[in-house]
Amino acid sequence: MTMQTSTPTSHESWRLIAQQLRVDSIRASSTAGSGHPTSAMSAADLMAVLLAKYFRYDFAAPKNPHNDHLIFSKGHASPLLYAMYRAAGAISDEELLTYRKRGSRLEGHPTPALPWVDVATGSLGQGLPIGVGVALAGKRLDRLPYRVWVLTGDSELAEGSMWEAFEHAAFEHLDNLTAVLDINRLGQRGETMHGWDLDYFATRLRAVGWHAIEIDGHDIAQIDAAFAEATATVGQPTAVIARTIKGMGVASVADKNGFHGKALEDADAAIRELGGRPNVTVTVSKPADDRPPQHFSVQQPLGLPRYQRGTKEATRKAYGEALAALGTARGDVVVLDGEVSNSTYADIFAKQKPDRYIEMYIAEQQMAAAAVGMQVRWKPFASTFAAFWSRAYDFIRMAAVSRANICLCGSHAGVSIGEDGPSQMALEDLAAFRAVWSSTVLYPCDANQTAKLVERMADRDGIVYLRTTREKTPIIYDPDDEFLIGGSRVLRQSGADAVTIVAAGITVHEALTAADTLAHDGIAARVVDLYSVKPIDSATLRAAARDTAGFVTVEDHWPEGGLGEAVLSVFANEELRPRVVKLAVRAMPGSATPAEQLAAAGIDAAAIVEAARALAVHAPKEAPWSIGNRPG
Amino acid sequence: MTMQTSTPTSHESWRLIAQQLRVDSIRASSTAGSGHPTSAMSAADLMAVLLAKYFRYDFAAPKNPHNDHLIFSKGHASPLLYAMYRAAGAISDEELLTYRKRGSRLEGHPTPALPWVDVATGSLGQGLPIGVGVALAGKRLDRLPYRVWVLTGDSELAEGSMWEAFEHAAFEHLDNLTAVLDINRLGQRGETMHGWDLDYFATRLRAVGWHAIEIDGHDIAQIDAAFAEATATVGQPTAVIARTIKGMGVASVADKNGFHGKALEDADAAIRELGGRPNVTVTVSKPADDRPPQHFSVQQPLGLPRYQRGTKEATRKAYGEALAALGTARGDVVVLDGEVSNSTYADIFAKQKPDRYIEMYIAEQQMAAAAVGMQVRWKPFASTFAAFWSRAYDFIRMAAVSRANICLCGSHAGVSIGEDGPSQMALEDLAAFRAVWSSTVLYPCDANQTAKLVERMADRDGIVYLRTTREKTPIIYDPDDEFLIGGSRVLRQSGADAVTIVAAGITVHEALTAADTLAHDGIAARVVDLYSVKPIDSATLRAAARDTAGFVTVEDHWPEGGLGEAVLSVFANEELRPRVVKLAVRAMPGSATPAEQLAAAGIDAAAIVEAARALAVHAPKEAPWSIGNRPG
Repeated sequence: MTMQTSTPTSHESWRLIAQQLRVDSIRASSTAGSGHPTSAMSAADLMAVLLAKYFRYDFAAPKNPHNDHLIFSKGHASPLLYAMYRAAGAISDEELLTYRKRGSRLEGHPTPALPWVDVATGSLGQGLPIGVGVALAGKRLDRLPYRVWVLTGDSELAEGSMWEAFEHAAFEHLDNLTAVLDINRLGQRGETMHGWDLDYFATRLRAVGWHAIEIDGHDIAQIDAAFAEATATVGQPTAVIARTIKGMGVASVADKNGFHGKALEDADAAIRELGGRPNVTVTVSKPADDRPPQHFSVQQPLGLPRYQRGTKEATRKAYGEALAALGTARGDVVVLDGEVSNSTYADIFAKQKPDRYIEMYIAEQQMAAAAVGMQVRWKPFASTFAAFWSRAYDFIRMAAVSRANICLCGSHAGVSIGEDGPSQMALEDLAAFRAVWSSTVLYPCDANQTAKLVERMADRDGIVYLRTTREKTPIIYDPDDEFLIGGSRVLRQSGADAVTIVAAGITVHEALTAADTLAHDGIAARVVDLYSVKPIDSATLRAAARDTAGFVTVEDHWPEGGLGEAVLSVFANEELRPRVVKLAVRAMPGSATPAEQLAAAGIDAAAIVEAARALAVHAPKEAPWSIGNRPG
Repeated sequence: MTMQTSTPTSHESWRLIAQQLRVDSIRASSTAGSGHPTSAMSAADLMAVLLAKYFRYDFAAPKNPHNDHLIFSKGHASPLLYAMYRAAGAISDEELLTYRKRGSRLEGHPTPALPWVDVATGSLGQGLPIGVGVALAGKRLDRLPYRVWVLTGDSELAEGSMWEAFEHAAFEHLDNLTAVLDINRLGQRGETMHGWDLDYFATRLRAVGWHAIEIDGHDIAQIDAAFAEATATVGQPTAVIARTIKGMGVASVADKNGFHGKALEDADAAIRELGGRPNVTVTVSKPADDRPPQHFSVQQPLGLPRYQRGTKEATRKAYGEALAALGTARGDVVVLDGEVSNSTYADIFAKQKPDRYIEMYIAEQQMAAAAVGMQVRWKPFASTFAAFWSRAYDFIRMAAVSRANICLCGSHAGVSIGEDGPSQMALEDLAAFRAVWSSTVLYPCDANQTAKLVERMADRDGIVYLRTTREKTPIIYDPDDEFLIGGSRVLRQSGADAVTIVAAGITVHEALTAADTLAHDGIAARVVDLYSVKPIDSATLRAAARDTAGFVTVEDHWPEGGLGEAVLSVFANEELRPRVVKLAVRAMPGSATPAEQLAAAGIDAAAIVEAARALAVHAPKEAPWSIGNRPG
């Protein structure tokens, strides 16, 4: 049942490619015993024409900056993508049949385990926003004529993030972006909201500013014409809105509900019905352009801002100033912000380097996605209030699956913002970011430390998060002090510390005040500035456990998953497991001044003093560091 | 500078009300020294007309089911809302001036600390989706003619969640919903994407299916006519798109950038410019209707599903079956799902009780918001894949600020889903949900336990999260076993247990297998099923710490913020702090079978055995429960 043909150049041969993509999608998923063949079959004609005629890609050189980009926003159609790779000669038929098996690069949903996959998809509604990021990079950063092709499902058009993407793409005039909308009418459990009402989508997209073309997604000539029109459209992105049939080509599943995410029961019969098993190889056109990508001029060496000890400055201000300095020294740094750049201080960079600043307005999902899209060749720093990163949590989770390297800054963390109240307070961000694979979580307490950490962030892989504070805080470090990721600073230490206070960010200053008060009482307290919450400086904490009776951890955060639990995890399986008194925010705050908030939450100097005294008073009676003796 | 007027009935007197709302917004924020007066001033005319003529509300009886609902999606305009309450006689002038002070109900952004506020806002883009939930409740559940009025900003129209809301409202024909769009052109740091292009918004909204009216938002007659048209529009929601001026009425700030979120510098001059300080009281019309809200008939007693010990069933299936049973016994239970009801098994309820099932399609933010909107009088259960609740994390965080009582179910948790790969695996949900104020986190291991917990969820306040598993798991409990929130089950216990294994959900079965293997080696292991991750059964864990050498915690989750750290927090400041070996997922998974995934992650029976052996071997040498003796 195999046929050999030469590289197809006609519509007829493209139909054959499409059938092969269907057959291979069925073969891969049936061999795996799972997957989404019917979701692949609806888009096979669209992707066959794309691969055969419009896609410019050098499969031998996936890092070629001139390559087009293809993102399957409907990541569950992965067998179609892998069938395309097979057709392009990038993977063997043998590898195709490893789909969904342990150790295979061909995962259930695409990931960058494959060199031709830019970003992971599978959480619907993310591929298009990420594609907007790639297209933005093409227009504004690389300034190269590569195109971005995004295949979307129709169910995912209910995700608001898609409409953030549609709006931004039009606003930025991304005519290098084509969205191919596979309107196959059926979602996972039944019909979508709008079924085959292509006019609905076209009207909405035109209202947003897109060029919209409605076609029969199984008519090769219409597809060809639509892609030609898309590539010729100037000044606006194009959506090819294709009416398709889910499971197209196999009558037992075509346009039928109940077959989402299931391998076909009789693959051989389905392949026969599709006309057998072609064996076509497509010679994909390589990009013609060889101009070098845009490089932004830089001035070395890096001149980080310097703050004088004893003065005060907000760490968010230091973030902005350090970022601007970093951008002067590094041409790869680009900055995004969610319409709060005058609060996060990303606006300092924006004013100095408008070419490399991209305003994302209040669309945190699109902002996170754009950062993921840009990080393939650039170093994005994105900022908003720390609380509002929770809006993009699924995107951050998926960025880790994409093995993305992005730097995120969250300002206005914790109750210490004061009067604005709980809606603006991040109190769960440390927990949320710690629980992201590949993450780094930094929380500086002074401006010099912040500046140094901003420099470090740029060279750190993974999801790198910096938490900044609204209020001005005392400068306690020298501008020349160095701060490594994974480090900490012992700010107070004597030969005979009774307790260790572990703090970060705003609470470091409370801890220092507390230590002064305790010293007056004759209680020596070691103070550790744990600015690197993840990775954590286990060695310094272990040393403190050996030397002191117990720990007070103090964080402007809910008690779960933050600083306190990070410290506890260090000692979980250690010989020496110190007593840890966890001070954290426990009641829902309202409005109040920053000082009132810290006091009400029980995370101010007075609360630390009280907790430390309890630990120290405890000590003489039964040596609190010698705990855990089994009763009896 | 005060004037007295009677209840106004004319446009002229409504203008006076509007000026009073401006003046009071200025007074409140200037007294506080912070707040967003200019954002209040743009919408003052709109809200004056609403309050004087269209709003039906009994301020003395905020729980009256016939009351209209007013939601400030632009929550930062809170001084305007409070000024309205003052004008309506609901709060005193004295209380108005407590704005943003510690202990005041008048927080920086509105919260239900005030009885007339349904839900907290302040994270932009949430008020409208929540309003859709309230309007859905009005149409489909209460079946009462109350109206929902939502005041939105223009910056927040960039949030995708707003477009989820617009789409759902049109799809559900919510003609009881009016969105008042305050298009004042200026965001926090500059102009919005579309400035005063009202046509842009009108075109987009009409494309989605809304009735859209463009007006001058400072022309009282136009506002009056638009609201009249909104209330008369049948079959579709109405958007009143109002061109307004930020800071309207005070020349030094009107339509000027740089005055967002700042109290006016010279409040007295501004009040003079506005014509002085009126003292108008508005008699707000009470709702005329007194029909009882819809009640759904029920059949008592509750007949939860029963599963036979020794058989297998998926906990997600038990969730669906128990939910359907609960819905039969309780008329207040309503169910929402994000287009995956055939996977979460919410479809069992949907088929039996279509009147109380609302399909939310793939729009998790709108789903969470709808649950928040409905929970004022109903008991919503909402479900999707656990991984995709991360999409709505900001909404869940804000639901806690709203003091909302909602039940959320996340299915397909962890690596044990198998072949679909990491995009579909929730591996951070325990951390994320634990770090939500007021949250309960449940993770059952068998179907009978799941059914009992579903029953308990309905009576639990706060954000109640249930994590379910894709795979069928052995039934190990009797159908009559009871499971309290905050409890646990000791599944294996001898007089001389060497180690305690703490597991939940899928890992309970691995723990039991491990205990069998260990028993063959002569190592007795206590096994605790910690199905209630938050609140946690400290007493049982403390008892285990007294009796055994150490703990192995095992979770299908990243190491941060989940089961292991929850256990560590129990012992943080206890006398007895056992050694805890934390088994969790540490490497990014790919595709593989469920069993392969558990093994690769090091959270299967073999891994538990190995960890337990290490603890037990360790024991005789130096009594691992007698840890922490200080060196020297």
